[in-house]
Amino acid sequence: MKLGSLFSKDQIDGELCVISQDLTQAVKATHIAPSLREALEKWSDCEAELQSLSSELNAGKLTSGVFDAKSAKWRSALPRTWLFADGSAFIYHVKLVRMARKAALPETLQTVPLMYQGECGQFLDPQQDIPQRDFAHGTDFEGEVGVITDFVPMGASPEEALQKIRLIVLINDVSLRGLIPEELAQGFGFFQSKPASALSPFAVTPDELGSAWKEGRVHLPLKVAYNEKFFGEANAGAMHFHFGQLIAHAARTRDLAAGTLIGSGTVSNEDHSKGSSCLAEKRMIETIEQGQPTTPFMKLGDRIQIEMFDQNGKSIFGQINQKVVAASR
Amino acid sequence: MKLGSLFSKDQIDGELCVISQDLTQAVKATHIAPSLREALEKWSDCEAELQSLSSELNAGKLTSGVFDAKSAKWRSALPRTWLFADGSAFIYHVKLVRMARKAALPETLQTVPLMYQGECGQFLDPQQDIPQRDFAHGTDFEGEVGVITDFVPMGASPEEALQKIRLIVLINDVSLRGLIPEELAQGFGFFQSKPASALSPFAVTPDELGSAWKEGRVHLPLKVAYNEKFFGEANAGAMHFHFGQLIAHAARTRDLAAGTLIGSGTVSNEDHSKGSSCLAEKRMIETIEQGQPTTPFMKLGDRIQIEMFDQNGKSIFGQINQKVVAASR
Repeated sequence: MKLGSLFSKDQIDGELCVISQDLTQAVKATHIAPSLREALEKWSDCEAELQSLSSELNAGKLTSGVFDAKSAKWRSALPRTWLFADGSAFIYHVKLVRMARKAALPETLQTVPLMYQGECGQFLDPQQDIPQRDFAHGTDFEGEVGVITDFVPMGASPEEALQKIRLIVLINDVSLRGLIPEELAQGFGFFQSKPASALSPFAVTPDELGSAWKEGRVHLPLKVAYNEKFFGEANAGAMHFHFGQLIAHAARTRDLAAGTLIGSGTVSNEDHSKGSSCLAEKRMIETIEQGQPTTPFMKLGDRIQIEMFDQNGKSIFGQINQKVVAASR
Repeated sequence: MKLGSLFSKDQIDGELCVISQDLTQAVKATHIAPSLREALEKWSDCEAELQSLSSELNAGKLTSGVFDAKSAKWRSALPRTWLFADGSAFIYHVKLVRMARKAALPETLQTVPLMYQGECGQFLDPQQDIPQRDFAHGTDFEGEVGVITDFVPMGASPEEALQKIRLIVLINDVSLRGLIPEELAQGFGFFQSKPASALSPFAVTPDELGSAWKEGRVHLPLKVAYNEKFFGEANAGAMHFHFGQLIAHAARTRDLAAGTLIGSGTVSNEDHSKGSSCLAEKRMIETIEQGQPTTPFMKLGDRIQIEMFDQNGKSIFGQINQKVVAASR
């Protein structure tokens, strides 16, 4: 099934809706749980009822309450949550960005996932502008896949962790490249360099991906368009660590709250013909090939679109579509 | 006024209560807001009503609903929230722990606060055991002061940020020293080395501190007892950066959700007669004075108590009182 959070001026979490598989129709599910956050907190009580509503919607059996999903105002599928633990499971991305920063590769590159905590108190909406305070901050997008988990007990194994995945989303992990070197030099990791990210409008259960969901990875290309031109179509199945490993890494010393979002890190393939999912990689490839980067970081008005299509060319999660604007202060 | 969250098996956020100034009596305030988290999300609607309930409770005017606060089961004052941004505003602490790790001091030590994102999806309760998976993880406590903010817009100045402080708490920021060097070597900052922390049972509005709350700092000693013996009484007023500066640092590139918790970092004074607020500091002082550390990190059964008293010797926030136990897995 596919779930989304309808904009509501009274509810920060939005209103829980079930969306049709083709993303054309939707119906409120607030009688099952007011919001997706709350549904995740009692998933075993809600899942069957949501699934049943989804089946009825897809079968055209609902006689009331169905509305046009295309013209509705959607929040990020999960508008806010308790933990966004962002991994960096595409090792080629790690290699390129560290090369760009002239930073050494960690010795544990192949054995221990890189992970940091990102902002999750209010995600940007999928079509919301990205506020920029200063061009020198080096605004970049990062196209990622993410999974939303049930409660995960501390010490869960990667195999146990895989069983806790409830939903899958896309993420635009906004990054401020200009702030990263100074911040990492302080030794405490990212903070200001990782402002609010956006999620896809819809979150889907793993079964919606059919055979593309296997071995804890989404084996489909992530389509990235920048200013409405092709930018990347790297396959998200190329993760070195699978999502079970990322979740287990996050849960090594803590319980994970229901609704935890685990990010894949920037989707990246070694085949340069597949393009990139962030500007930092493209700039590094330009540097390798031409001696210097020619693509600037995001300027006011630049637009980023991130979407994933199934084997039949149908959008799975809806589209992230954001442009950069001047911050109001 | 003083607020707390009563344990409830049905509500992850607990039930909002007002507590008497002397911490002996309490009354539910769930008719004003179900939980402290929700009260913070509509503070301007709730504050006057909560204040009025608090005045009535303290004046002995409430005829029903008052219960014994001492025998009630309290969660951390705010059982979970959207962001725990932990600063490190006591520079003497930074100097000692970096010396212990043989790590260089950041060049911006005096000008830019150190800050990382900590786990906030479920704080340990103030009397809850600290689960330890492995003694080699180097379990440590860190006694801190924290402030809970209203919504803070991106780009707020330190002065504006000070006006957004709604409540003050104590924090035991549990740290796994054995995991820190490897984690920081990866370059992404703390993650596994910062498991769930605990807050004091009660959160108080700044006016409850009287003249001890000034210049964005709490000018009172933080009493730390370890295995029921004196361990520290460092003055929390010695912060190099005040809370307005820490909040503004956190809000430089993001809005902060209402309910954001900002930590002071481990309270630390240069005067060694004041003791310490964490084991890492004590171990470093032992190394300086005797050539090697003699105090081990926390073993199973070790107990940490953190509390702060007003000028009249009355507990302000209630006590954090936790012992280390073997994790269940």
